[in-house]
Amino acid sequence: MKIRAVVLTISDSAARGGREDLSGPALVEELQHLGAEIVATEILPDDRPVIARRLVDYAERADVNLILTTGGTGLSPRDQTPEATREVIEREVPGIPEAIRLKGVFESTPFAMLSRGVAGIRAGTLIINLPGSVRGAREGFAVIRGVLRHALETLVGEARHEEAFVPDRRGERT
Amino acid sequence: MKIRAVVLTISDSAARGGREDLSGPALVEELQHLGAEIVATEILPDDRPVIARRLVDYAERADVNLILTTGGTGLSPRDQTPEATREVIEREVPGIPEAIRLKGVFESTPFAMLSRGVAGIRAGTLIINLPGSVRGAREGFAVIRGVLRHALETLVGEARHEEAFVPDRRGERT
Amino acid sequence: MKIRAVVLTISDSAARGGREDLSGPALVEELQHLGAEIVATEILPDDRPVIARRLVDYAERADVNLILTTGGTGLSPRDQTPEATREVIEREVPGIPEAIRLKGVFESTPFAMLSRGVAGIRAGTLIINLPGSVRGAREGFAVIRGVLRHALETLVGEARHEEAFVPDRRGERT
Repeated sequence: MKIRAVVLTISDSAARGGREDLSGPALVEELQHLGAEIVATEILPDDRPVIARRLVDYAERADVNLILTTGGTGLSPRDQTPEATREVIEREVPGIPEAIRLKGVFESTPFAMLSRGVAGIRAGTLIINLPGSVRGAREGFAVIRGVLRHALETLVGEARHEEAFVPDRRGERT
Repeated sequence: MKIRAVVLTISDSAARGGREDLSGPALVEELQHLGAEIVATEILPDDRPVIARRLVDYAERADVNLILTTGGTGLSPRDQTPEATREVIEREVPGIPEAIRLKGVFESTPFAMLSRGVAGIRAGTLIINLPGSVRGAREGFAVIRGVLRHALETLVGEARHEEAFVPDRRGERT
Repeated sequence: MKIRAVVLTISDSAARGGREDLSGPALVEELQHLGAEIVATEILPDDRPVIARRLVDYAERADVNLILTTGGTGLSPRDQTPEATREVIEREVPGIPEAIRLKGVFESTPFAMLSRGVAGIRAGTLIINLPGSVRGAREGFAVIRGVLRHALETLVGEARHEEAFVPDRRGERT
Protein backbone atom coordinates (compact mmCIF):
# COMPACT_ATOMS: atom_id res chain seq x y z
CA MET A 1 0.00 0.00 0.00
CA LYS A 2 1.22 3.44 -0.94
CA ILE A 3 1.88 5.87 1.91
CA ARG A 4 0.42 9.24 0.91
CA ALA A 5 1.61 11.66 3.54
CA VAL A 6 1.22 15.25 4.67
CA VAL A 7 3.86 16.78 6.94
CA LEU A 8 2.81 19.73 9.09
CA THR A 9 5.42 21.76 10.94
CA ILE A 10 3.82 23.58 13.83
CA SER A 11 5.88 26.47 15.12
CA ASP A 12 5.13 30.16 15.61
CA SER A 13 8.69 31.17 14.79
CA ALA A 14 8.96 29.01 11.67
CA ALA A 15 5.53 30.20 10.50
CA ARG A 16 6.59 33.84 10.68
CA GLY A 17 9.90 33.04 9.01
CA GLY A 18 12.07 33.73 12.06
CA ARG A 19 13.42 30.20 12.23
CA GLU A 20 14.21 27.75 9.48
CA ASP A 21 12.04 24.62 9.52
CA LEU A 22 14.44 21.68 9.82
CA SER A 23 12.21 18.99 11.33
CA GLY A 24 9.57 19.09 8.58
CA PRO A 25 12.18 18.37 5.86
CA ALA A 26 13.74 15.68 8.08
CA LEU A 27 10.39 13.87 8.22
CA VAL A 28 9.91 14.27 4.46
CA GLU A 29 13.28 12.60 3.98
CA GLU A 30 12.36 9.75 6.34
CA LEU A 31 9.08 9.19 4.53
CA GLN A 32 10.73 9.20 1.12
CA HIS A 33 13.10 6.48 2.31
CA LEU A 34 9.97 4.39 2.86
CA GLY A 35 8.78 5.14 -0.67
CA ALA A 36 6.03 7.47 0.49
CA GLU A 37 4.44 10.08 -1.72
CA ILE A 38 4.55 13.52 -0.07
CA VAL A 39 1.17 15.04 -0.88
CA ALA A 40 1.80 18.33 0.90
CA THR A 41 3.92 20.08 3.51
CA GLU A 42 2.90 23.16 5.42
CA ILE A 43 4.12 25.35 8.25
CA LEU A 44 1.45 26.43 10.73
CA PRO A 45 1.54 28.71 13.78
CA ASP A 46 0.86 27.28 17.26
CA ASP A 47 -2.79 28.19 16.94
CA ARG A 48 -5.19 25.48 18.06
CA PRO A 49 -8.15 26.24 15.75
CA VAL A 50 -5.82 26.65 12.75
CA ILE A 51 -4.13 23.31 13.46
CA ALA A 52 -7.44 21.51 13.99
CA ARG A 53 -8.87 22.93 10.76
CA ARG A 54 -5.88 21.88 8.65
CA LEU A 55 -5.86 18.39 10.20
CA VAL A 56 -9.50 17.97 9.22
CA ASP A 57 -8.93 19.35 5.70
CA TYR A 58 -6.09 16.93 4.97
CA ALA A 59 -7.57 13.91 6.80
CA GLU A 60 -10.73 14.10 4.72
CA ARG A 61 -8.88 14.18 1.41
CA ALA A 62 -9.09 10.85 -0.41
CA ASP A 63 -5.44 11.07 -1.52
CA VAL A 64 -4.01 11.29 2.03
CA ASN A 65 -3.70 8.41 4.51
CA LEU A 66 -1.05 9.77 6.90
CA ILE A 67 -0.48 13.12 8.58
CA LEU A 68 2.67 13.67 10.60
CA THR A 69 2.98 16.81 12.69
CA THR A 70 6.20 18.10 14.23
CA GLY A 71 6.18 20.71 16.98
CA GLY A 72 3.80 22.12 19.55
CA THR A 73 3.86 19.06 21.81
CA GLY A 74 5.80 20.53 24.72
CA LEU A 75 4.72 22.27 27.94
CA SER A 76 5.05 25.91 26.93
CA PRO A 77 1.82 27.92 26.94
CA ARG A 78 1.58 27.99 23.13
CA ASP A 79 2.05 24.21 22.70
CA GLN A 80 -1.44 23.06 21.69
CA THR A 81 -0.86 20.47 18.97
CA PRO A 82 -2.07 17.52 21.11
CA GLU A 83 -5.25 19.36 22.08
CA ALA A 84 -5.98 20.24 18.43
CA THR A 85 -5.35 16.65 17.40
CA ARG A 86 -7.46 15.10 20.12
CA GLU A 87 -10.29 17.44 19.14
CA VAL A 88 -10.46 16.06 15.58
CA ILE A 89 -9.66 12.34 15.87
CA GLU A 90 -12.47 9.79 15.92
CA ARG A 91 -10.49 6.98 17.52
CA GLU A 92 -7.27 7.26 19.52
CA VAL A 93 -4.19 5.05 19.02
CA PRO A 94 -2.52 5.59 22.40
CA GLY A 95 0.21 3.01 21.92
CA ILE A 96 1.97 5.04 19.24
CA PRO A 97 2.82 8.07 21.40
CA GLU A 98 3.43 5.78 24.39
CA ALA A 99 6.01 3.82 22.40
CA ILE A 100 7.64 6.99 21.06
CA ARG A 101 7.93 8.49 24.56
CA LEU A 102 9.01 5.35 26.38
CA LYS A 103 11.52 4.27 23.73
CA GLY A 104 12.87 7.79 24.14
CA VAL A 105 12.96 7.60 27.93
CA PHE A 106 14.62 4.18 28.00
CA GLU A 107 16.99 4.51 25.06
CA SER A 108 17.68 8.19 24.47
CA THR A 109 16.70 10.94 26.91
CA PRO A 110 14.36 11.27 29.91
CA PHE A 111 13.11 14.54 28.39
CA ALA A 112 11.08 12.42 25.96
CA MET A 113 8.50 12.05 28.75
CA LEU A 114 7.65 15.74 28.34
CA SER A 115 6.40 15.32 24.78
CA ARG A 116 2.61 15.38 24.96
CA GLY A 117 1.91 14.00 21.47
CA VAL A 118 -1.18 11.95 20.62
CA ALA A 119 -2.11 9.75 17.67
CA GLY A 120 -5.45 8.83 16.22
CA ILE A 121 -7.64 8.20 13.22
CA ARG A 122 -9.98 10.47 11.32
CA ALA A 123 -11.68 9.56 8.07
CA GLY A 124 -9.33 6.65 7.45
CA THR A 125 -6.24 8.84 7.91
CA LEU A 126 -3.70 8.20 10.66
CA ILE A 127 -2.54 11.37 12.43
CA ILE A 128 0.63 11.24 14.55
CA ASN A 129 2.18 14.06 16.57
CA LEU A 130 5.98 14.02 16.73
CA PRO A 131 8.27 16.31 18.76
CA GLY A 132 9.44 19.61 17.30
CA SER A 133 13.19 19.08 17.39
CA VAL A 134 14.92 17.38 14.45
CA ARG A 135 16.32 14.75 16.74
CA GLY A 136 13.00 14.14 18.53
CA ALA A 137 11.12 13.95 15.22
CA ARG A 138 13.64 11.51 13.69
CA GLU A 139 13.80 9.32 16.80
CA GLY A 140 10.02 9.28 17.04
CA PHE A 141 9.74 8.33 13.39
CA ALA A 142 12.23 5.50 13.90
CA VAL A 143 9.88 4.01 16.52
CA ILE A 144 6.92 3.86 14.13
CA ARG A 145 8.81 3.16 10.87
CA GLY A 146 8.38 -0.63 11.02
CA VAL A 147 4.66 -0.61 11.75
CA LEU A 148 3.52 2.31 9.60
CA ARG A 149 2.64 0.47 6.39
CA HIS A 150 0.81 -2.27 8.26
CA ALA A 151 -1.11 0.33 10.27
CA LEU A 152 -2.27 2.10 7.11
CA GLU A 153 -3.29 -1.20 5.51
CA THR A 154 -5.32 -2.10 8.58
CA LEU A 155 -7.08 1.26 8.52
CA VAL A 156 -8.73 0.41 5.22
CA GLY A 157 -9.25 -3.23 6.00
CA GLU A 158 -6.45 -4.61 3.78
CA ALA A 159 -4.74 -6.30 6.70
CA ARG A 160 -5.99 -7.73 9.97
CA HIS A 161 -4.09 -6.79 13.10
CA GLU A 162 -3.89 -10.44 14.12
CA GLU A 163 -1.51 -11.18 11.27
CA ALA A 164 1.13 -9.04 12.81
CA PHE A 165 1.41 -11.58 15.58
CA VAL A 166 2.08 -14.49 13.26
CA PRO A 167 5.89 -14.53 13.12
CA ASP A 168 6.15 -16.69 10.00
CA ARG A 169 4.27 -14.23 7.89
CA ARG A 170 6.37 -11.18 8.67
CA GLY A 171 10.09 -10.76 8.89
CA GLU A 172 9.92 -7.40 10.62
CA ARG A 173 9.49 -8.61 14.20
CA THR A 174 11.75 -7.07 16.83
CA MET B 1 -9.92 -13.93 46.75
CA LYS B 2 -11.67 -15.92 44.07
CA ILE B 3 -11.36 -14.64 40.51
CA ARG B 4 -14.80 -14.84 38.92
CA ALA B 5 -14.28 -14.08 35.26
CA VAL B 6 -16.17 -13.49 32.04
CA VAL B 7 -14.32 -13.82 28.72
CA LEU B 8 -15.77 -11.98 25.75
CA THR B 9 -14.46 -12.67 22.25
CA ILE B 10 -15.19 -9.74 19.99
CA SER B 11 -15.03 -10.60 16.31
CA ASP B 12 -17.51 -10.26 13.47
CA SER B 13 -16.23 -13.38 11.74
CA ALA B 14 -16.23 -15.53 14.89
CA ALA B 15 -19.71 -14.24 15.82
CA ARG B 16 -21.15 -15.34 12.50
CA GLY B 17 -19.35 -18.67 12.69
CA GLY B 18 -16.94 -17.99 9.86
CA ARG B 19 -13.85 -18.28 12.01
CA GLU B 20 -13.17 -20.48 15.01
CA ASP B 21 -12.63 -18.55 18.24
CA LEU B 22 -9.18 -19.54 19.50
CA SER B 23 -8.25 -16.56 21.67
CA GLY B 24 -11.30 -16.81 23.97
CA PRO B 25 -10.49 -20.45 24.90
CA ALA B 26 -6.80 -19.49 25.31
CA LEU B 27 -7.78 -16.89 27.93
CA VAL B 28 -10.12 -19.34 29.66
CA GLU B 29 -7.20 -21.73 29.94
CA GLU B 30 -4.92 -19.01 31.34
CA LEU B 31 -7.55 -18.03 33.91
CA GLN B 32 -8.12 -21.63 34.97
CA HIS B 33 -4.38 -21.97 35.62
CA LEU B 34 -4.85 -19.19 38.16
CA GLY B 35 -7.74 -21.04 39.79
CA ALA B 36 -10.37 -18.68 38.41
CA GLU B 37 -14.02 -19.58 38.06
CA ILE B 38 -15.25 -18.93 34.51
CA VAL B 39 -18.71 -17.45 34.98
CA ALA B 40 -19.45 -17.05 31.28
CA THR B 41 -17.93 -16.82 27.83
CA GLU B 42 -19.53 -15.18 24.86
CA ILE B 43 -18.73 -14.25 21.26
CA LEU B 44 -19.91 -10.80 20.18
CA PRO B 45 -19.78 -8.98 16.85
CA ASP B 46 -17.68 -5.78 16.49
CA ASP B 47 -20.72 -3.66 17.32
CA ARG B 48 -20.07 -0.87 19.77
CA PRO B 49 -23.52 -0.67 21.44
CA VAL B 50 -23.71 -4.47 21.74
CA ILE B 51 -20.27 -4.62 23.36
CA ALA B 52 -21.04 -1.75 25.74
CA ARG B 53 -24.35 -3.34 26.78
CA ARG B 54 -22.79 -6.74 27.53
CA LEU B 55 -19.93 -5.15 29.47
CA VAL B 56 -22.47 -3.35 31.66
CA ASP B 57 -24.61 -6.47 32.12
CA TYR B 58 -21.68 -8.57 33.30
CA ALA B 59 -19.93 -5.83 35.30
CA GLU B 60 -23.04 -5.25 37.38
CA ARG B 61 -23.49 -8.91 38.27
CA ALA B 62 -22.47 -9.62 41.85
CA ASP B 63 -20.81 -12.91 40.86
CA VAL B 64 -18.36 -11.33 38.40
CA ASN B 65 -15.23 -9.34 39.32
CA LEU B 66 -13.23 -9.57 36.08
CA ILE B 67 -14.10 -9.22 32.40
CA LEU B 68 -11.45 -9.94 29.78
CA THR B 69 -12.16 -9.07 26.18
CA THR B 70 -10.17 -10.30 23.20
CA GLY B 71 -10.45 -8.65 19.80
CA GLY B 72 -11.63 -5.38 18.31
CA THR B 73 -8.65 -3.35 19.53
CA GLY B 74 -6.91 -2.75 16.20
CA LEU B 75 -7.14 0.06 13.66
CA SER B 76 -9.63 -1.40 11.20
CA PRO B 77 -12.91 0.51 10.83
CA ARG B 78 -14.91 -2.10 12.77
CA ASP B 79 -12.52 -2.21 15.74
CA GLN B 80 -14.51 -0.44 18.47
CA THR B 81 -13.86 -2.43 21.63
CA PRO B 82 -11.82 0.35 23.31
CA GLU B 83 -14.51 2.93 22.58
CA ALA B 84 -17.24 0.65 23.99
CA THR B 85 -15.13 -0.02 27.07
CA ARG B 86 -14.26 3.61 27.73
CA GLU B 87 -17.94 4.46 27.45
CA VAL B 88 -18.91 2.19 30.35
CA ILE B 89 -16.00 2.39 32.82
CA GLU B 90 -16.23 4.66 35.85
CA ARG B 91 -12.51 4.89 36.52
CA GLU B 92 -9.67 4.13 34.10
CA VAL B 93 -6.60 2.00 34.92
CA PRO B 94 -4.25 3.26 32.19
CA GLY B 95 -1.18 1.42 33.44
CA ILE B 96 -2.57 -2.00 32.51
CA PRO B 97 -2.84 -1.42 28.75
CA GLU B 98 0.35 0.66 28.83
CA ALA B 99 2.23 -2.24 30.39
CA ILE B 100 0.71 -4.75 27.95
CA ARG B 101 1.66 -2.63 24.95
CA LEU B 102 5.12 -1.61 26.08
CA LYS B 103 6.11 -5.07 27.31
CA GLY B 104 5.04 -6.16 23.84
CA VAL B 105 7.01 -3.46 22.07
CA PHE B 106 10.19 -4.04 24.09
CA GLU B 107 10.08 -7.81 24.41
CA SER B 108 8.01 -9.21 21.55
CA THR B 109 6.90 -7.16 18.54
CA PRO B 110 6.60 -3.46 17.66
CA PHE B 111 3.10 -4.19 16.35
CA ALA B 112 1.95 -4.29 19.97
CA MET B 113 1.86 -0.47 19.85
CA LEU B 114 -1.13 -0.71 17.48
CA SER B 115 -3.35 -2.39 20.05
CA ARG B 116 -5.72 0.29 21.33
CA GLY B 117 -6.98 -1.58 24.41
CA VAL B 118 -8.11 0.18 27.58
CA ALA B 119 -8.77 -1.05 31.12
CA GLY B 120 -11.04 0.29 33.81
CA ILE B 121 -13.47 -0.34 36.62
CA ARG B 122 -17.23 -0.46 36.66
CA ALA B 123 -19.32 -1.54 39.62
CA GLY B 124 -16.35 -3.18 41.34
CA THR B 125 -15.49 -5.21 38.24
CA LEU B 126 -12.18 -4.85 36.42
CA ILE B 127 -12.52 -4.79 32.62
CA ILE B 128 -9.41 -5.36 30.50
CA ASN B 129 -9.17 -5.33 26.69
CA LEU B 130 -6.65 -7.76 25.21
CA PRO B 131 -5.61 -8.17 21.55
CA GLY B 132 -7.57 -10.48 19.27
CA SER B 133 -4.80 -12.85 18.23
CA VAL B 134 -4.07 -15.90 20.36
CA ARG B 135 -0.50 -14.82 20.77
CA GLY B 136 -1.39 -11.22 21.60
CA ALA B 137 -4.03 -12.33 24.10
CA ARG B 138 -1.68 -14.77 25.84
CA GLU B 139 1.22 -12.33 25.94
CA GLY B 140 -1.06 -9.61 27.27
CA PHE B 141 -2.39 -11.94 29.93
CA ALA B 142 1.16 -12.83 30.96
CA VAL B 143 1.80 -9.15 31.70
CA ILE B 144 -1.14 -8.87 34.13
CA ARG B 145 -1.03 -12.39 35.59
CA GLY B 146 1.06 -11.49 38.62
CA VAL B 147 -0.98 -8.44 39.66
CA LEU B 148 -4.51 -9.65 38.86
CA ARG B 149 -5.47 -11.13 42.22
CA HIS B 150 -4.08 -8.15 44.12
CA ALA B 151 -5.94 -5.77 41.80
CA LEU B 152 -9.25 -7.52 42.43
CA GLU B 153 -8.66 -7.54 46.19
CA THR B 154 -7.95 -3.81 46.14
CA LEU B 155 -11.14 -3.14 44.18
CA VAL B 156 -13.26 -4.31 47.09
CA GLY B 157 -11.00 -2.88 49.77
CA GLU B 158 -9.46 -6.18 50.88
CA ALA B 159 -5.94 -4.97 50.13
CA ARG B 160 -4.31 -1.58 50.13
CA HIS B 161 -2.18 -0.71 47.13
CA GLU B 162 0.66 0.38 49.41
CA GLU B 163 1.21 -3.19 50.55
CA ALA B 164 2.32 -4.17 47.10
CA PHE B 165 5.38 -2.02 47.59
CA VAL B 166 6.45 -3.77 50.80
CA PRO B 167 8.75 -6.49 49.48
CA ASP B 168 8.73 -8.59 52.66
CA ARG B 169 5.02 -9.17 52.44
CA ARG B 170 4.90 -10.40 48.87
CA GLY B 171 7.19 -12.71 47.00
CA GLU B 172 5.88 -11.82 43.59
CA ARG B 173 8.07 -8.78 42.91
CA THR B 174 9.82 -8.68 39.56
CA MET C 1 14.43 28.63 38.09
CA LYS C 2 13.25 28.16 41.65
CA ILE C 3 10.96 25.18 42.31
CA ARG C 4 8.14 26.38 44.55
CA ALA C 5 6.28 23.27 45.58
CA VAL C 6 3.21 22.12 47.44
CA VAL C 7 3.00 18.52 48.67
CA LEU C 8 -0.46 17.08 49.24
CA THR C 9 -0.85 13.76 51.05
CA ILE C 10 -4.19 12.20 50.16
CA SER C 11 -5.30 9.55 52.61
CA ASP C 12 -8.44 9.10 54.68
CA SER C 13 -6.55 7.44 57.52
CA ALA C 14 -3.75 10.01 57.62
CA ALA C 15 -6.30 12.84 57.45
CA ARG C 16 -8.13 11.58 60.50
CA GLY C 17 -4.86 10.96 62.34
CA GLY C 18 -5.08 7.19 62.34
CA ARG C 19 -1.91 6.71 60.34
CA GLU C 20 1.27 8.74 60.29
CA ASP C 21 1.97 10.44 56.96
CA LEU C 22 5.37 9.17 55.82
CA SER C 23 5.20 9.70 52.06
CA GLY C 24 4.48 13.45 52.25
CA PRO C 25 7.64 14.10 54.33
CA ALA C 26 9.61 11.77 52.00
CA LEU C 27 8.64 13.96 49.03
CA VAL C 28 9.47 17.13 50.96
CA GLU C 29 12.92 15.71 51.60
CA GLU C 30 13.38 14.79 47.91
CA LEU C 31 12.33 18.29 46.85
CA GLN C 32 14.66 19.96 49.35
CA HIS C 33 17.56 17.97 47.90
CA LEU C 34 16.77 19.74 44.62
CA GLY C 35 16.83 23.12 46.35
CA ALA C 36 13.06 23.55 46.15
CA GLU C 37 11.12 25.89 48.39
CA ILE C 38 8.26 24.06 50.12
CA VAL C 39 5.39 26.53 50.03
CA ALA C 40 2.90 24.29 51.83
CA THR C 41 2.11 20.73 52.81
CA GLU C 42 -1.33 19.41 53.60
CA ILE C 43 -3.09 16.13 54.38
CA LEU C 44 -6.45 15.66 52.66
CA PRO C 45 -9.06 12.91 52.85
CA ASP C 46 -9.84 10.79 49.75
CA ASP C 47 -12.66 13.13 48.82
CA ARG C 48 -12.78 14.09 45.17
CA PRO C 49 -14.30 17.59 45.46
CA VAL C 50 -11.98 18.47 48.36
CA ILE C 51 -8.92 17.35 46.38
CA ALA C 52 -10.03 19.19 43.24
CA ARG C 53 -10.67 22.37 45.20
CA ARG C 54 -7.27 22.37 46.91
CA LEU C 55 -5.48 21.63 43.61
CA VAL C 56 -7.15 24.67 42.07
CA ASP C 57 -6.40 26.87 45.09
CA TYR C 58 -2.70 26.06 45.03
CA ALA C 59 -2.30 25.95 41.24
CA GLU C 60 -3.64 29.47 40.91
CA ARG C 61 -1.28 30.95 43.50
CA ALA C 62 1.51 32.95 41.87
CA ASP C 63 4.08 31.58 44.32
CA VAL C 64 3.51 27.90 43.40
CA ASN C 65 4.73 26.19 40.20
CA LEU C 66 4.61 22.51 41.26
CA ILE C 67 2.08 20.37 43.14
CA LEU C 68 2.97 16.80 44.02
CA THR C 69 0.27 14.55 45.41
CA THR C 70 0.87 11.22 47.11
CA GLY C 71 -1.93 8.71 47.63
CA GLY C 72 -5.35 7.95 46.25
CA THR C 73 -4.11 6.56 42.93
CA GLY C 74 -4.96 2.89 43.47
CA LEU C 75 -8.01 0.80 42.62
CA SER C 76 -9.89 0.88 45.92
CA PRO C 77 -13.29 2.57 45.84
CA ARG C 78 -12.08 5.69 47.66
CA ASP C 79 -9.07 6.25 45.36
CA GLN C 80 -10.12 9.32 43.38
CA THR C 81 -6.99 11.45 43.11
CA PRO C 82 -6.58 10.92 39.34
CA GLU C 83 -10.22 11.84 38.69
CA ALA C 84 -9.91 15.01 40.80
CA THR C 85 -6.69 15.94 39.00
CA ARG C 86 -8.04 15.32 35.52
CA GLU C 87 -11.03 17.47 36.38
CA VAL C 88 -8.87 20.55 37.06
CA ILE C 89 -5.98 20.36 34.59
CA GLU C 90 -6.07 22.38 31.37
CA ARG C 91 -3.51 20.31 29.46
CA GLU C 92 -2.40 16.76 30.21
CA VAL C 93 1.24 15.58 30.31
CA PRO C 94 0.69 11.84 29.81
CA GLY C 95 4.36 10.93 29.47
CA ILE C 96 5.10 11.68 33.12
CA PRO C 97 2.78 9.04 34.65
CA GLU C 98 3.60 6.65 31.78
CA ALA C 99 7.31 6.94 32.58
CA ILE C 100 6.70 6.54 36.32
CA ARG C 101 4.59 3.43 35.80
CA LEU C 102 6.71 1.78 33.14
CA LYS C 103 10.03 2.49 34.86
CA GLY C 104 8.36 0.85 37.84
CA VAL C 105 7.13 -2.15 35.87
CA PHE C 106 10.48 -2.73 34.13
CA GLU C 107 12.85 -1.91 36.96
CA SER C 108 11.02 -2.38 40.24
CA THR C 109 7.63 -4.09 40.56
CA PRO C 110 4.79 -5.05 38.21
CA PHE C 111 2.38 -3.55 40.75
CA ALA C 112 3.43 -0.13 39.46
CA MET C 113 1.00 -0.70 36.58
CA LEU C 114 -1.89 -0.37 39.05
CA SER C 115 -1.08 3.22 39.93
CA ARG C 116 -3.60 5.38 38.10
CA GLY C 117 -1.82 8.73 38.49
CA VAL C 118 -2.09 11.53 35.96
CA ALA C 119 -0.09 14.72 35.39
CA GLY C 120 -1.07 18.00 33.87
CA ILE C 121 -0.90 21.77 33.86
CA ARG C 122 -3.21 24.36 35.34
CA ALA C 123 -2.47 28.06 35.49
CA GLY C 124 1.24 27.53 34.79
CA THR C 125 1.54 25.00 37.62
CA LEU C 126 2.57 21.40 37.00
CA ILE C 127 0.50 18.85 38.98
CA ILE C 128 1.84 15.30 39.33
CA ASN C 129 0.16 12.38 41.11
CA LEU C 130 2.54 9.94 42.81
CA PRO C 131 1.70 6.66 44.55
CA GLY C 132 0.78 6.64 48.23
CA SER C 133 3.49 4.36 49.57
CA VAL C 134 6.82 5.84 50.64
CA ARG C 135 8.64 3.59 48.24
CA GLY C 136 6.28 4.27 45.33
CA ALA C 137 6.45 8.02 45.93
CA ARG C 138 10.26 8.05 46.12
CA GLU C 139 10.67 5.81 43.07
CA GLY C 140 8.19 7.93 41.12
CA PHE C 141 10.03 11.08 42.12
CA ALA C 142 13.31 9.56 40.98
CA VAL C 143 11.85 9.16 37.49
CA ILE C 144 10.96 12.85 37.16
CA ARG C 145 13.86 14.35 39.16
CA GLY C 146 16.08 15.01 36.14
CA VAL C 147 13.42 16.72 34.02
CA LEU C 148 11.54 18.68 36.67
CA ARG C 149 13.42 21.97 36.51
CA HIS C 150 13.38 22.00 32.71
CA ALA C 151 9.65 21.22 32.70
CA LEU C 152 8.91 24.15 35.00
CA GLU C 153 11.09 26.50 32.92
CA THR C 154 9.24 25.45 29.77
CA LEU C 155 5.89 26.09 31.41
CA VAL C 156 6.64 29.80 31.68
CA GLY C 157 8.49 30.02 28.38
CA GLU C 158 12.02 30.25 29.84
CA ALA C 159 13.16 27.15 27.94
CA ARG C 160 12.16 25.56 24.68
CA HIS C 161 11.54 21.83 24.72
CA GLU C 162 13.78 21.38 21.68
CA GLU C 163 16.84 22.30 23.70
CA ALA C 164 16.48 19.19 25.76
CA PHE C 165 17.33 17.19 22.69
CA VAL C 166 20.64 18.95 22.06
CA PRO C 167 23.07 16.78 24.00
CA ASP C 168 25.89 19.34 24.07
CA ARG C 169 23.79 21.86 25.90
CA ARG C 170 22.68 19.62 28.77
CA GLY C 171 24.63 17.14 30.76
CA GLU C 172 21.61 15.45 32.27
CA ARG C 173 20.87 12.99 29.46
CA THR C 174 20.27 9.37 30.45
